[in-house]
Order: sequence, then structure tokens, then C-alpha cells
Amino acid sequence: MSAALEAVACCAPLAAAALSDDEAAATAELFKALADPARVRVVNLLATSGEPVCVCNLTEPLGLSQPTVSHHMKKLLDAGLVEREQRGKWAYFSLKRDAVEKLAAVADLKGACC
Amino acid sequence: MSAALEAVACCAPLAAAALSDDEAAATAELFKALADPARVRVVNLLATSGEPVCVCNLTEPLGLSQPTVSHHMKKLLDAGLVEREQRGKWAYFSLKRDAVEKLAAVADLKGACC
Repeated sequence: MSAALEAVACCAPLAAAALSDDEAAATAELFKALADPARVRVVNLLATSGEPVCVCNLTEPLGLSQPTVSHHMKKLLDAGLVEREQRGKWAYFSLKRDAVEKLAAVADLKGACC
Repeated sequence: MSAALEAVACCAPLAAAALSDDEAAATAELFKALADPARVRVVNLLATSGEPVCVCNLTEPLGLSQPTVSHHMKKLLDAGLVEREQRGKWAYFSLKRDAVEKLAAVADLKGACC
């Protein structure tokens, strides 16, 4: 398990009573992975697809070159937000269910404020 | 209303069916505002406080200088996540309810994937 994957497992909700330095850092890392328009679009494409998406089908909707798409996929992989499956010459990506649930929990401040 | 404040109003959920370039950029900006451990801690402190927090009470728990705290508060203000109220010589900050709801909605991918 990569350090970043552990980070997703460890990050704490923004409304948690006591946030340690490590939890704050892990939570910031998770948001950082999504702090880019191309990565927001990738997550959107994966979220609205019913099945794993070939990296070869990401270049056109994103309007980016293959190396640039691969760079963004590595960031999302490192953050533990997506998973990768090799099928022949192509990599297929899908959202990781536990990371998606963690992201929603982390960002949910309702009830704790305002 | 600042451009960034509008960005919060315009950003779209990650699971929205069609994400425009502008929506992707606004959503990324919102995550970017939270892609820093100090700002995660500020939002955590504001979320767990029942009332507006004086900027003079943020320096100690964050372990940061006043100018650095002010820098982070400006980023959060520009993103429309917090609001600022002047009381005498001090600024008091609280989370903005609509931004908090927007953040939770944006980050919620459940039901749309996996």
C-alpha cells in the first residue's frame, strides 16, 4: 500500500472534533488531488461511466495528450481515488468505492457548523 | 461579489452528468482552497466552534504567525468558504453555510458510481 493510499484511509472529516497534524495533512493531500480541472473532469467521467474507462478513451474528451492524461491518472492513483486494471495494452480506470465514501465524509461539514 | 465567490456558486458536483470547462475549473478552485493543511485546520476549527472565531485566536492553535494566518484566511475568503466580520480591531471568521453545503454536494459521488 502506498503512503498516499494510506493517507486516504487516515484522513479525517473537516468537522472532526480534534484534527491532528497528520490528519490535516492527509485531508489536504486528498483535496490537492482534486485541485486541478483535468482531474475533476476525469473523476466526473469515471463517476458517470457505469464501467471502467480505458485511458485511450480519456484523451479526446479531456483534449489532452496521452502523457498528460497519464500524469493526472498517476496523481489520482497516488491519492487512492481511482484503481487501475491492465487489459492487454491499455489501462482501465475506475473510482475506488472506499475513497469516494471517504471524500464525501471528509467534505461533509453539515450539522457541525453554521 | 468576487469572481471566486461566484465560482463557489457555480461549481458542479463531481458526479454531474455533464461538466463544462468552467464548472470543472470552479470545482478545482474550491478543492484548491482546501489543499493545504493549515486551511484544513482553520475550517476544522471554525466547524467545531459554535460561534465566529477571532483571528487572534487562530495563531496559537495553528502555530503560525499572524501574517501567515491572514494569508490563509484570504484564500478561504476568496474561495467563498468563510465570511469575515470586523469587531473593533479584530476580524472574526465563520464558515459560510451555502459554501459548506456546496462543498458536501460537490464531493458526493455516492450513488453515481461504484
